Amino acid sequence: MNKKVAIGVDIGGTNTAIGVVDPEGNVMVKDNIPTPSHGNIEKYIADLAGAINEVIKSVSLLNKDIEILGIGIGAPNGNYYSGTIEYAPNLSFKGVVRLIDLLRGHFPKMEALALTNDANAAAIGEMIYGGAKGMRNFVMFTLGTGVGSGIIVNGDLVYGHDGFAGECGHTTLVPGGRRCGCGALGHLEAYCSAPGMKRTAFELMAFYHAADSLLADKSYNELDSKMIYEAAVQGDKIALEVFEKTGAWLGQGLADTVHHLSPEAIFLFGGPTAAGDFIFKPTKEHMEKHLLPIFKDKIKILPSKLKSGDAAIVGASALVWKELEK
Amino acid sequence: MNKKVAIGVDIGGTNTAIGVVDPEGNVMVKDNIPTPSHGNIEKYIADLAGAINEVIKSVSLLNKDIEILGIGIGAPNGNYYSGTIEYAPNLSFKGVVRLIDLLRGHFPKMEALALTNDANAAAIGEMIYGGAKGMRNFVMFTLGTGVGSGIIVNGDLVYGHDGFAGECGHTTLVPGGRRCGCGALGHLEAYCSAPGMKRTAFELMAFYHAADSLLADKSYNELDSKMIYEAAVQGDKIALEVFEKTGAWLGQGLADTVHHLSPEAIFLFGGPTAAGDFIFKPTKEHMEKHLLPIFKDKIKILPSKLKSGDAAIVGASALVWKELEK
Repeated sequence: MNKKVAIGVDIGGTNTAIGVVDPEGNVMVKDNIPTPSHGNIEKYIADLAGAINEVIKSVSLLNKDIEILGIGIGAPNGNYYSGTIEYAPNLSFKGVVRLIDLLRGHFPKMEALALTNDANAAAIGEMIYGGAKGMRNFVMFTLGTGVGSGIIVNGDLVYGHDGFAGECGHTTLVPGGRRCGCGALGHLEAYCSAPGMKRTAFELMAFYHAADSLLADKSYNELDSKMIYEAAVQGDKIALEVFEKTGAWLGQGLADTVHHLSPEAIFLFGGPTAAGDFIFKPTKEHMEKHLLPIFKDKIKILPSKLKSGDAAIVGASALVWKELEK
Repeated sequence: MNKKVAIGVDIGGTNTAIGVVDPEGNVMVKDNIPTPSHGNIEKYIADLAGAINEVIKSVSLLNKDIEILGIGIGAPNGNYYSGTIEYAPNLSFKGVVRLIDLLRGHFPKMEALALTNDANAAAIGEMIYGGAKGMRNFVMFTLGTGVGSGIIVNGDLVYGHDGFAGECGHTTLVPGGRRCGCGALGHLEAYCSAPGMKRTAFELMAFYHAADSLLADKSYNELDSKMIYEAAVQGDKIALEVFEKTGAWLGQGLADTVHHLSPEAIFLFGGPTAAGDFIFKPTKEHMEKHLLPIFKDKIKILPSKLKSGDAAIVGASALVWKELEK
């Protein structure tokens, strides 16, 4: 019997990763090509198609009965409805890129070709391969350089009217607060992303004049969220307060999401979640504080079960299985 | 040919309104009974069933070919999935009331019997009879004593995991801000409901020591949002600033909702919306300020087209048509 597999493609700012993923969410073969910092889109799509054909060839050598069901792509500002990438701030492609149309030219017979943004892909990945199997209503938050999210209602991803639903990282936590990467003030992403945690550490060091903190010898460009975690493990007060405050902010934001959607669970994914209880405990505690009585002690906050290294490829490939359900 | 109609029931804190609604959303016959402030639930359900049978009798006298398709009920904390009213703070019924089960005993052959909360019912009403006909993704905000909301995704109401989705009135606008009726701090409802506007007026009079305001002779218990509107029309600075601030808060909250759901439009319903541009203009302006570029100038903020007097009955009746779609 044929072994059915899906291709996952993760388009990042500098690198595009391509993998073949089996139905259990294991990456069988992977490769990557640069995402161009300039140059024309047709050339990039031709390179991408070439790399996809290479991984297909490699996996076919491993198992000659392999059947490729489709290609799922995660990209910043990827629009599921139109198959386009629209005005993505971190990519060099300008305006609206007709990604699926262009790729279809290279794979005219491929059953499923689908695009969405990386956080939406991660949510579908969690549902198909991860900790959300069997859940019909949940939300995924990805904490990294930014904060992305993907919303599942009744077993389907919420794309909204124009394909861009699930931007919970850009809800306002603090009116008139920190400048977000998008230009607006006080958004969740400016507080709960990895750089947001660094900003909190710098604010706290400034507030306490904390010369004795383990973080006090790091420059703004040196400090990262992993160092904050390591300092917290050693009991550094600034680092511990960074986690407490990040959890308080994230908990406030998650409560807003619960009041919109009444999910069964919220999954957290990304670097900062490796800190475990340091981040999960205050997040849960502060979320509960903001919730209506009908929601209290009902909503689980869970770590994603997607393996961090391959999560973007695996999430993107999950789009294929979701497409074929239809 | 039979004329198909639906019954709408609106259970409020002191009054239960019952109406027969035609497919265009017109109330043909209506009546009401007291919602008991104490006493047993079986007695109330028997009274309600009696009143429903009375309106059915009345409408059958008007048109003998009438066919009753079902009964839709809107009630605070009404749970669509279980047909129960759960711990509603403004109703005298304690704990969990099995409303649909009990009513089914009186109407064993009725095709559709369905319950949800009043704001969800209003959202379905807007879709079936009102300004959201043909829209597949929109959100309804009801501004009154509280702030309710109903979310439509892909043409269906979002109930979430346990039936209580769409409580956007309880998202946090101002961390550590005003005490909300639910006990938490800084929720949207504490700012953008009709009493929220009064609270803003009192804060502003205190801040400016505004003895010359048209509102300065009203006690806290006298002042209402209609008086604030009338003072704004006369150019009263405090009243004008109340609308400006209410719009700023509501705009912030609507932007959070847009970032979750990417709706085509947000509908506003309720007393404060009668102020027209006084409230719609600052709301729109401030919502735009908080939005990601991909959402800017795309999301309509529209007044509900449900007639205010009958909206609760009409909204509840819309549940019946929605049930029969299935």
